[in-house]
Parts: sequence; structure tokens; C-alpha cells
Amino acid sequence: MQTVRVELSDRSYDVWVARAMLGRLGEIAREATAGRRAVVVADETVAGLYARAATDSLVSAGMDTSLLTFPAGERNKTLATYSSLMDQLFALRPRIDRRTLIVALGGGVTGDIAGFIAATALRGLPWLQCPTTLLADVDASVGGKTAVDHPAGKNLIGAFHQPGGVLIDVEPLRTLPADELRGGLAECVKHGVIRDESLLDFLEANAEKILACDAEVMTELIARNVSIKAAVVADDERESGSRAHLNFGHTIGHGIEAAGGYGGLSHGQAVALGMVAECGIAVARGLLDASGAGRVKRLLQRLGLPVRRTGLDAEEVWNIMQHDKKVLGGRVRMVLPADLGSVDVYDDVTADEVAEALKLPGAPGELKA
Amino acid sequence: MQTVRVELSDRSYDVWVARAMLGRLGEIAREATAGRRAVVVADETVAGLYARAATDSLVSAGMDTSLLTFPAGERNKTLATYSSLMDQLFALRPRIDRRTLIVALGGGVTGDIAGFIAATALRGLPWLQCPTTLLADVDASVGGKTAVDHPAGKNLIGAFHQPGGVLIDVEPLRTLPADELRGGLAECVKHGVIRDESLLDFLEANAEKILACDAEVMTELIARNVSIKAAVVADDERESGSRAHLNFGHTIGHGIEAAGGYGGLSHGQAVALGMVAECGIAVARGLLDASGAGRVKRLLQRLGLPVRRTGLDAEEVWNIMQHDKKVLGGRVRMVLPADLGSVDVYDDVTADEVAEALKLPGAPGELKA
Repeated sequence: MQTVRVELSDRSYDVWVARAMLGRLGEIAREATAGRRAVVVADETVAGLYARAATDSLVSAGMDTSLLTFPAGERNKTLATYSSLMDQLFALRPRIDRRTLIVALGGGVTGDIAGFIAATALRGLPWLQCPTTLLADVDASVGGKTAVDHPAGKNLIGAFHQPGGVLIDVEPLRTLPADELRGGLAECVKHGVIRDESLLDFLEANAEKILACDAEVMTELIARNVSIKAAVVADDERESGSRAHLNFGHTIGHGIEAAGGYGGLSHGQAVALGMVAECGIAVARGLLDASGAGRVKRLLQRLGLPVRRTGLDAEEVWNIMQHDKKVLGGRVRMVLPADLGSVDVYDDVTADEVAEALKLPGAPGELKA
Repeated sequence: MQTVRVELSDRSYDVWVARAMLGRLGEIAREATAGRRAVVVADETVAGLYARAATDSLVSAGMDTSLLTFPAGERNKTLATYSSLMDQLFALRPRIDRRTLIVALGGGVTGDIAGFIAATALRGLPWLQCPTTLLADVDASVGGKTAVDHPAGKNLIGAFHQPGGVLIDVEPLRTLPADELRGGLAECVKHGVIRDESLLDFLEANAEKILACDAEVMTELIARNVSIKAAVVADDERESGSRAHLNFGHTIGHGIEAAGGYGGLSHGQAVALGMVAECGIAVARGLLDASGAGRVKRLLQRLGLPVRRTGLDAEEVWNIMQHDKKVLGGRVRMVLPADLGSVDVYDDVTADEVAEALKLPGAPGELKA
């Protein structure tokens, strides 16, 4: 087992990474609340696979345990689902009280929505996260961001609410669709670029074992990524400064993801394309050398992620970027690498630079998706 | 103008009390956000009376200003109204960003719901409170509690989110229905009992001017009450300890308010009855002398609040009390005065003691409501 401490003034907590971590949920839950009540929140798919392991562990530890479910899928990350889960929560008997522990069991959608339930039911309940996807393991599990989507945009409604702890079990990764695994790997590459070049070495050296979900390598990979994210978040819990570095690849990536007519592009794929484009802008500005950008691109390819895409409408992407909720005072802020492992934030990137970067690698023969 | 500082580690703020305070909203808004955007949230009734003064002040100060409204009334303090206000908020053009300032203009319902909007839109926006009722002035304006109701109970969904400042204008109190004024006065009596006997002296000495809403006396009264509440909240921001003292009168009061068949009893009236009953328990336990309890009762009467009620079903009241969201581990916690100005929390009050206290003053001739 590897343990990473997330240091946040009065709300520090541990992230534990191991095989069969879910079997320890009960003992950790007992430490996480003075009460004896736990409510597991999972989507119907994850509930079918892992709810039993979670609730068995909780019941064995003497917790009064309930399970709430909702239909799987990002399209259900809505206020309507949140409202329905609140109805289920307040219908439980005996009634929940302020010591009732919420357990978020599942991927990013579940962590976001169950976390928002925990943030707002009775004005705040203790909660634990049990992520079951690589993306949730290395990204959503640290930072205390909770949210639901709104028709006007993703994650527009939510709260910061730190969990009491995060239990990362590497076993569920074996049943994860390849595309979801790659989505998590895109974030791992991002962490390397913004903070730790040696993580890029690790990814390059272990690419095959990672794609095969070797338990030992995955434990190490996840712990390293959690450490990086934890350090960034600890420096800037409320996202007013350096935490913006985590948006590397996401500024253009979100634009690509949201742009119409390119269905079938996952978040991870969009972020990979975003990182390539933002590296391209950094190279064009003379911040990053071309060999660094090439290394990022080759690593993404080796991990099964796309690095080029035909037919992107740069103007549409730019328009969407300007409406991102992180935009302040109408200026697009973009994170660009200086060297691998080091980035800065710029608010003067132009539409032309983005258009140019989206055209890369430029040669017509390479423009096939 | 009187200014009270609410001291909360990194989120301290000022409460300003004065005539025509709403006219200063613009200048204060400019200080409260680095942006130039303000969204005023009010119910339709208050919007008709005061929105113009608020938006004029904001526009004069150079703020891009919008007004969102919802139907007046506690029954609209729901997730449905919250969702509809979020739709309005995200439909605004230009789009809101994280510097957009929310201004809650109105009574407790508006403060609660607009505060919850501010707490959760884009995971937290800056906000100012402009309360327009005495209850909101002395109670809801300090503490950062935001919430909506759920069919299962009041304020079950919400968050702690401190405002950037609170502007209390004493003018709107003149148009307040007498019953709503008295609701605020019940909380003033409560503050005297839990922390400051000299506030009871002030209330006794100025009862007529208070009931006539004399601006100078009201400014003093509100500032004193805000100071008391601010001190309590500063000691215990997250409501884990001494902040429970603010529940004096409310434990039995909520039970009375929620008990079926006693329609027409306002929150303030229920709290007045709850204070009388809880003083009765304190006297029966030998904590408070009878003259102290009598003084509280006479003051409440002078302020137009009820101190007795026929036909209360003590068993129903007790059952409701046990389901209050503040109940931990099934034990009812009650705040009882030792002397006037000093209270403690007890978790061993029995159903029989409550039944006995609700029977007071006992003599059949006095049992008329």
C-alpha cells in the first residue's frame, strides 16, 4: 500500500493506493466519522460490480449501511439527479444526521455528484471517495471539487468540499474500457509536463505494463500522480493561482471537446489533442524546444492517445474557450510549458496562435485523424 | 452608521447598519469584487419595493447589473426555485464569471436561497447581503448559513458561505408587517438571554420606540444584536459547539411550529413559546430562578409575542423535536439558561419535562391563547 498525504490546513487527509483497498473501507469509515451510519452512492453499473464489496466491508465494521444509485453516464450529472438522490437520502430511516458518512463509489461523475451531495446535505456531511477509474484516481480524487453540469456548461454548479480520505483500489482498473484507461493516462502525461519530467520517464519505461494494468506499476503510477496533484492543490486550495497549472491541455482541450460535429471524442482524447496544441504554441513562442514537444507527442501516441485531428474548426474552438467558466474579464488564460516539468500561465494567447497550433503538424499527409 | 466586524479567520467581513444604507450598495459592491458585474436576487414583492434603489446604486458605481426574481414566500425556498434561478443566472449575457457578485436583497428566504446560489454557482461567487426584515437583520445576516428546504424538513440542503459584507438599511422596517417585526424581536430577546442581560434592559427601556421603528433606536438595537451573533459565530463558525446556544427557544419552538393543527403560528411566535417553555424547564431544574423566567415572559408580552398556547400536543411536539437535523445520535439537545445572559447545552431533557413545560402556566384560566 502507498499512502499520500494531502496537506490542506485544517482539512488534510490521506489517499491510500493498493490492491483490494475496498476491503478496508469499513475500518477507514469508522475513523472518518463519529457516527455509525454510511450511505454509499454509486451509479447502477458500478453498483452492480463493486457495491457488494463496499457495503460488506462497512457492515463488517459495524456501520449501518445504505446504498443509493443513479443511472450511469455523464448526461445524468445534473441537478435533476442530485435532487433525486437528495430525495432518496432524506427518505432513509432512521433519518440521517450530521455524522452520516457519504461514500462516493465510482468514476468522476459519481465523485462529483456524491461529493456535491456531501457538501450540501445538512450543509455538509463527512465523505470518503472510492474512485474506480484511472481518471478519477489521478485527477478527481484530489482537490475537493464537487459539481453537477448545467445545460449552459459542465461543472457550473458545485462546491469545494474535501473528503475525509480517498481509497484507491487498483483492481477495478482491469475491467475498465481501454478508452477510459487512456483518459486517465492523458492526465498522467499532463502531471509530468507541468511538474515532474521524471514521471514522463516512468511512463515511457512502463508503457506496456501500464496498458496491461499491472497492479504494482499502477499502484506506483497512481501514487506518483496523486502526489503531484496533492502538492498543486495544497499550494492553492481555492484555485486562485498556481492550481491553474492543472488546466494545461484543458483550455484548448475543452474547446475541442465541446466543438460540434466531432462526436466520439472522449475527454482524454480531447485533452491529448489540447496538450499537443498548447505545446505547439509554446514552441512557436520559443518557450519550449521542439524536441520536448515531440517527446510529449510520442508518449501520448504510445499510450494510445490521438495527437492530431482533421477538420477542427479553430474559430468555433476559440469561441468555446472564451466561454469557459475559468475565463476572467473576458481573457483566455492558457498554461504553456517552459521546459518539461515547468509551466506558466499566459493571458495573451491569440485566436491566430490557437488556429495555427490546431493546424499542426501541418503537412497535408499527416492530417488524417 | 454603526459598523460591526464579524471575525472569521480568513473570511472576516463588516456589517453596516444605517438609514438609507441601500444607497451605498454600489460603492461597497465595487470593493467586494474585482469584477464589474452584479446580479441582484430578490423575491417579486421586495423587487417591487427596493430593487430600483439597489440597482440604481450599483449602476451609478459602474457595475453591469442584472436582477433575478422568484415568487415570494417560504414555500418557494426549494430546489426547484434554486434550479430556476440557476437557469436565469447562466442565461445572462455576457456570461457570468467567478468575479460576478451576487446581491441578496430581501428577508431570510432570499438570503438563504441567494446565498446558496452564491455558494454553488461556479463553485462559489462573492456575495453581499441586504436584508430587509428585522429577523434577517439580526439573525440570518450573520453566520454564512445558506439553504433551501426539502419536503423532509427545513434548511436540509445548503452550505456555509460567508458574504463579503452585510448592508442593513433600517428604512424598510417601517413597511414591515407587525408580525414580521415581532419575529425579529423574539430573536433579540433570545440574544439577551443567551449572552447579554443588558440587552434585555435596552429592550425594556425602548419597547415603544422599537415597536414604532424609530430609526435611531433600531440602528442601535440591530447593531447590538449583530454584535452578539457575530461573537457567537466567530467562536464556532462551523456550528460544532457553542454556536448551538443560538438554538435557545428553537428546539421546542421548531416542534411547536411544525406540529400539525396550529396553523397561523409564525416562526417568531413559536420561538417565543419555545423560550417560555425552555425557561420553564430551566426553572424546574433549579438552573434559573422564577423571577428571571418571569422577566423574559413579560418582555415577550410587551413586544407583542405570545407566551402561552392552549391545546399543544406535547407528544407530537416531542416527536418532531427528535427529528430535527441538529439531533445527533438520537438525543435531543436543548439550550437552557442558568442566569439571564448565560446558557448551557443539555442532552438529557426528557419528554415528560417538555410536556410539563408546555402545560405551564398551568392554571386553566390562563390557558387561552
